[in-house]
Amino acid sequence: MRERVNQLINFCTQCGSPVDHVIPKDDDRLRFVCKNCGYIHYLNPKIVVGSIPIWEDKILLVKRSIDPCYGKWTLPAGYLENGESVKDGARRETREEANATLGEMHNFGLFNLTQINQIYFMFYSELLKTDFSAGHESLEASLFKEEEIPWDEIAFKVIRHTLELFFKDRASQSYSFHMENLYFDRSWKDRT
Amino acid sequence: MRERVNQLINFCTQCGSPVDHVIPKDDDRLRFVCKNCGYIHYLNPKIVVGSIPIWEDKILLVKRSIDPCYGKWTLPAGYLENGESVKDGARRETREEANATLGEMHNFGLFNLTQINQIYFMFYSELLKTDFSAGHESLEASLFKEEEIPWDEIAFKVIRHTLELFFKDRASQSYSFHMENLYFDRSWKDRT
Repeated sequence: MRERVNQLINFCTQCGSPVDHVIPKDDDRLRFVCKNCGYIHYLNPKIVVGSIPIWEDKILLVKRSIDPCYGKWTLPAGYLENGESVKDGARRETREEANATLGEMHNFGLFNLTQINQIYFMFYSELLKTDFSAGHESLEASLFKEEEIPWDEIAFKVIRHTLELFFKDRASQSYSFHMENLYFDRSWKDRT
Repeated sequence: MRERVNQLINFCTQCGSPVDHVIPKDDDRLRFVCKNCGYIHYLNPKIVVGSIPIWEDKILLVKRSIDPCYGKWTLPAGYLENGESVKDGARRETREEANATLGEMHNFGLFNLTQINQIYFMFYSELLKTDFSAGHESLEASLFKEEEIPWDEIAFKVIRHTLELFFKDRASQSYSFHMENLYFDRSWKDRT
């Protein structure tokens, strides 16, 4: 999962001229508007899709080989790409980061990270086999029982929260669809 | 709901130089990459959030005062903005397009429109009162019983599909969370 916080725009994507940061006519919020051609650059939240891969009583985690959070453990997750459904995106991320193949996928939760303009959509799914391995953004891929989860070495708060909710649901054998807003104390750096 | 299909990028948002359309190192798909500074412009799906506003046995629809689909009926919906949760976004769109206030919101469905890089997230909710009116992107706002829905005058296929699913759920008094991929025959113009 690469981190790409929505960027500032200095120049127009259409004509290359400098942009203003103004509220366009008939709008109510600041946009980057081209001073030359008037093109409005809308910035919108990005969707992060991911999975909780399950094998028997264990969960598959991957150890990140990229920043941010190099060396920390996380669930397979990443930005949804154009042309993808949310399920296909989560399946792709699981394959890319853990060379793992998910079976039937179940909706787990949607988490609004409004401070960093990210909407997480997570699934849970049984692994079809245990032939997983570290993908190109991972140092390791490994199965953990609940009591083995390295809680202090989890990369992102939203992932820690997802794992906590999952184990709670599993304990009660009651998997509901979660929708929550998650906040961090100090910008996105606090997610680590 | 304004329509903004993801755009092509000609110039770098960071330095204003022309971009190439190439596969970056360690990537597997085409991106717009700046020929000068190397900045990679990722384009990702956008989230559209909307509501099915309910009053007794009726549903609130709005008649569009903007293109595409000027004069057609739709449910309140639009692009999720940065800094918003999906619920807040759907609530805002309902207020903007119909000056209507939703009560408790329930998850209805997620619809992948992969051909146009849009992910719809829809809620259903009782209206708190009937003091709605046409918002600035609407010509009219009006309540319809199921048998009064102007099916041939609905703006978008995803909205028609949402209404069909809703009435089916309501008839059986069984509201499940829907997740579906919707396809159109000929690009986004076929959505009308």
